[in-house]
This record gives sequence, C-alpha cells and structure tokens, in this order.
Amino acid sequence: MQAAQYIGNKSFRVVESQAISPGDDEVRLNVGYVGICGTDMHIYHGVMDTRVNPPHTIGHEISGTIAEIGKNVAGYEIGERVVVRPLDWCGECPACDAGHSHVCQNLKFMGIDTPGAFQNSWTVKSRTLHKLPANVSLQQGALIEPLSVACHDVARSRLTAGEKAVVIGGGPIGQLVALVAKSVGAEVIISEPNESRRDFSNKFAIPTVNPIEQDLKDFVDTWTQGKGADVVFEVSGVQPAVDAMVDIASVRGRICMVAIHAQKPQVDLFQFFWKELELLGARVYEHADFDMAIDLVASGSIDLAPFITSVSKLSHISNAFENMDNNPTGMKALVSCAVE
Amino acid sequence: MQAAQYIGNKSFRVVESQAISPGDDEVRLNVGYVGICGTDMHIYHGVMDTRVNPPHTIGHEISGTIAEIGKNVAGYEIGERVVVRPLDWCGECPACDAGHSHVCQNLKFMGIDTPGAFQNSWTVKSRTLHKLPANVSLQQGALIEPLSVACHDVARSRLTAGEKAVVIGGGPIGQLVALVAKSVGAEVIISEPNESRRDFSNKFAIPTVNPIEQDLKDFVDTWTQGKGADVVFEVSGVQPAVDAMVDIASVRGRICMVAIHAQKPQVDLFQFFWKELELLGARVYEHADFDMAIDLVASGSIDLAPFITSVSKLSHISNAFENMDNNPTGMKALVSCAVE
Ligand SMILES: [Zn+2]
Ligand SMILES: [Zn+2]
Ligand SMILES: [Zn+2]
Ligand SMILES: [Zn+2]
Repeated sequence: MQAAQYIGNKSFRVVESQAISPGDDEVRLNVGYVGICGTDMHIYHGVMDTRVNPPHTIGHEISGTIAEIGKNVAGYEIGERVVVRPLDWCGECPACDAGHSHVCQNLKFMGIDTPGAFQNSWTVKSRTLHKLPANVSLQQGALIEPLSVACHDVARSRLTAGEKAVVIGGGPIGQLVALVAKSVGAEVIISEPNESRRDFSNKFAIPTVNPIEQDLKDFVDTWTQGKGADVVFEVSGVQPAVDAMVDIASVRGRICMVAIHAQKPQVDLFQFFWKELELLGARVYEHADFDMAIDLVASGSIDLAPFITSVSKLSHISNAFENMDNNPTGMKALVSCAVE
Repeated sequence: MQAAQYIGNKSFRVVESQAISPGDDEVRLNVGYVGICGTDMHIYHGVMDTRVNPPHTIGHEISGTIAEIGKNVAGYEIGERVVVRPLDWCGECPACDAGHSHVCQNLKFMGIDTPGAFQNSWTVKSRTLHKLPANVSLQQGALIEPLSVACHDVARSRLTAGEKAVVIGGGPIGQLVALVAKSVGAEVIISEPNESRRDFSNKFAIPTVNPIEQDLKDFVDTWTQGKGADVVFEVSGVQPAVDAMVDIASVRGRICMVAIHAQKPQVDLFQFFWKELELLGARVYEHADFDMAIDLVASGSIDLAPFITSVSKLSHISNAFENMDNNPTGMKALVSCAVE
C-alpha cells in the first residue's frame, strides 16, 4: 500500500508502507476520499511543523469502507461505509469527566497529532466511526467532517427557527454554517468581500453582503428593523470582523467564535456589558454533530456536491495542495485514496 | 424640601425645591438613605457631564418610605418601606419585546438620565418599587441595588453549588458578587492587589489572592486540580484581568463581564475557540435579581452592614463625595436624605 507523507517545506512524498492490523478496539479502513482543509494548508505552509513533526501522514476529512475489524469491536461489518470523527480523547481529564471529551485537555487530533488518512489504509479506534447511509456517496462522505464543524457551531449558538443570523466569512466552513443555520429554520446572510465566494452563496439562495462596499451594520439594522442579529458567526479571523460582530449583534445577541485568531484582537468589551452579549467559543464537534451532519445530507436537506472543486489521485497529492494554494477561494479539494 | 444638585467640577449645591406630586402610575417617596456608587463618582469627576447635563440631581441606590400614591397604583400603602429598581424602559423596542427590558434599547437610568434620589423626596413609577421586609433596615436597603447587580451577575453566569468561581477585583461589586456566589453554594476566591480590600474579604471568610505577588493561574490550577475555574467574574476593568480571565477559566468555563472597559482591550480569542469558553455580558438587574437580593438580606444569608463605611447628612453631600475620592478602597458611603 501507499501513504503520502508531508515532509516539510510545502512538499509531500508518496511512499510504500505497511497496512496496520487493527488492535482489539480498532478497525482498519480502506480509505475512500480525504478532503484538504484549512488546517492541512497551514501544515503545508510549514507553520505547524513543530506540532506535526514531519515526515508525517496528515489528513482527517475522510470516508472509507471497513476492511478489518478488531476482536472487541461490535456492530460493524467488513465492507460497511463509514466516516471518522478524528478525535482521540483521554477519557480521564476534567473536561472528559464533565462530558466534553471533544475538547479534552489532552486531545489528540487524528491526522495532526497522530497519523492521518492520506493513505490507502487507515487504522482507527472504532469509537471514532459513524456509518454512512446508502444514499450518501463516499465523496460527499469526505465532507461530513467539515459539515459537522458547522453543525457544532450552530448548536453552540443555540440558533432557532425564525432567528436572524449573520455569518462573517464565506469560506467552506462559513458556507456550511450558513446552510446548517438555514436548515434549522433561521434566516441567514453571509458577509464576504470575495466575489466568487458570494456567487457560491447565491447558488444556495443565501443573500450576501460585500462589507467593503456596503456598511454591514446599516444592512443588518435595516434587515432586522433596528434589532440587530440574534446570532453572529465569526468565521474570518480578522480584526474588522471582530469589530463588526459586536456592532451587529442584537441586545442579548450570541456571537459564535469559529475562527482561529492567532493574534489577540481588540474586542469592544463595553458592548458586551452594554448589550449583554454572549461570546461562545466553538471547536471541532461532538458525536451528535456528526449524526446531524449525516442526517442533513441523507435527508437531502444539504447537498454537498457543489462544494467539491476537484478530485485528485493520491499519487498527485502535491498537485492538489499546490492548486489549493493557487486558488484560495476554491471550496473543497478531495484526494481519492483508494488503491490505484 | 431640599435637593442636592451636581453642578459640575466635583461640586454639589443643596437647594430648596418642590416635592413633585405623583402622576397616576407613580408614588412619591420620603427618601431614607442613598448610596454613593462608582458611577456617581464618575459623574462627580466630570466624565459624564454631557450625559447628565448639570445642574442635575443624581443618586440611584435608595431606600425610602411611601409618602403619596398615584391613583392607578395598587398594592402599596403610605408608610411602607421600599427600594427602587432605578430603570425606566420604553416597553416598545425589540429588547423590551424580547423580555429584556433591563437592557432596553432606549433605557433611561434613573439618577443619571433622569433626576435621582439625593433629595428629601423622590417621585418614581410604581413599577420600579420593591418592598423591604420588616427586618431589613433602611440603611441596608440602600445597598439592595448594588447587591442586585451582584445577583444578576451570578444569575448570568449560571453558577451552581459546588462549582469554583474566581472574582477578579475586590471593590464593592466584586465583594458582593463573591458573597452571592457563596450563597448559591459555590466555592469562591477574590483576586485583588489592594491589601485593605483583601482584609475586607477575609472578614467574610472569602480567600484572596494578591495577583501581584502570586501567579493567579498557578493558584487556580492548584485549587482546581488542573481543571481551571468554572466561572470567572471580571470586575476590574483592566487589561491584565482580561488576560487572566481567559487563562484561569476551565474548558467550557463561563466568564461574566461585569466591569466597564472604556478602552477595547486585547482578548485571546484563540483560547475562546480552544477551550470553548463563554463570555457573558451582565448589566444592571432584572426584577428577580432585586427579589433575590432582598431575600438574601432578609434571610440573614448576607449581612450588608460591614459594607457601610460612613453615613453623611444630605447637607454634607460634598464632604461625602470628597471622602470617597480620598479613600477609593472604602466600600459604601451612604447619604441620609431624610428631612433634617
Ligand atoms: Zn479540517
Ligand atoms: Zn480528556
Ligand atoms: Zn450604582
Ligand atoms: Zn425598550
């Protein structure tokens, strides 16, 4: 079998490797498709080298079929199609103890902190698996992970039908958040300066604002008749968005922090006091978020096909990353990891 | 009758004035005691002159007895002892509509935006009144308003019995927050650099940390066995506290923003994402917070007497403010507003 290894400096090599037999609580998967996400691009750019310690096989947005089953694993059969919730939690820290194992204090993120899915065969703990219904393709299955992020964000925000939400940032996660927000019955708009991303939103009939050309606060004031947005999702990671999120939120509005702010931006905490705002950090996903994501696709509520920009073979993984790098507004590139 | 007027430039004058007969939905109070709060000190220092527009009678932490009753007012009798929830909401904006009239988009704060209580007689809407039980003195009654702030903060934080809370800042509100936190069964500590304030906490058997001498994060890590604080109350308004609140909060910890941050501090939003923190703005109080505050005093759970640093006559109001100015770590100065 073959495995792609990130070797540092925007480079991958594809090497021969050994399939790993599953331990008692594990399964071995034949990998179907693996998506390239923003974190993978960060790794590619070398900014996470101390964490990933190359050479290292990355990749965590995966679909596959079960090839081998460990002896303690019940409820799965060879050939079943599954996706992986790529979290490895300790089960013993205060966060796990409180039922928040997805933000375990010792969390290992599979495909970053441990070997990932850009290979023909991946061996994982069975507790990470979710079954794919027959009508969800392996290609769409590779997008269940990012869709689960969006489900988690919407769950954290407590968004309900009839509320009005603004998503700041129309990248893949922002677009998925908007679709999940719509699926729970909320009205949603996306604020995004990039035209091709706005066009993408419009395919899903999600209204957009270009915050460079139009004052977002004015727009939201008019849209909400002076109330402000019930929920704001910050998915952009830039200072102007941090300013805007506070300005456009209603009294008692909830702001969901999805973006990763590497710097410490300035935040108008006076407005948090004055309007009794709520800021809710949201990271990865819980079991229920994967269930919801799979249901949304299986039921036809959300069609993930338009998100798939390209499908590359594992042997061409370097090209796939290079193309993403040259086309930062593309949505989702998949790598086909089946044996060629 | 007499009324004190703030006339700008750290000055008051006491003038003869007319008692105002109550309108149909109002009552006229004989004012008992009025507390001087941080906001009053800000007004005294001239930083809110454009909002208060001197000459203006300020004062909003008040107890009194009913002297006259408007014709639509039911349920009150002449001579009854009451406190005032000094909020005047519009009843028509989206915030009022959503049941959050205490953060009404057109809120008038009585004693700032409208005339206040530093006078012998104050006429207010009956909907602002709460009755004082027989065993709560008029002096303690004047502290029900700041205690209600603390009750609101604790309610917003969803603090429950057995949880561990850190209050950053040991001024009057911080101390009251700690007492309310204790009363709901939480364990609580106060972080406060000022020695006399730490001594004050110790009177109530509330442990303190001097964050200048001791690393607050180390202390909290040891105290919580590596979990972090379930709830942090930020009551100080300074950048180091904004840094600390994020560091000491547990995974999924709640941070209650009580302080007024006039500047926009830098906030480690990455930690909000990483630990799924929650920031909850808390402003003034709701009806239930006044009810809880009165119950806590009436039941003997909280004794407000130690908070009362001095009691001055209305004719000496200038002195009372001057003394507070010279003794910024004092807790609560009252002005006796009964006819002399
Ligand atoms: Zn990802
Ligand atoms: Zn854990
Ligand atoms: Zn006050
Ligand atoms: Zn209102």
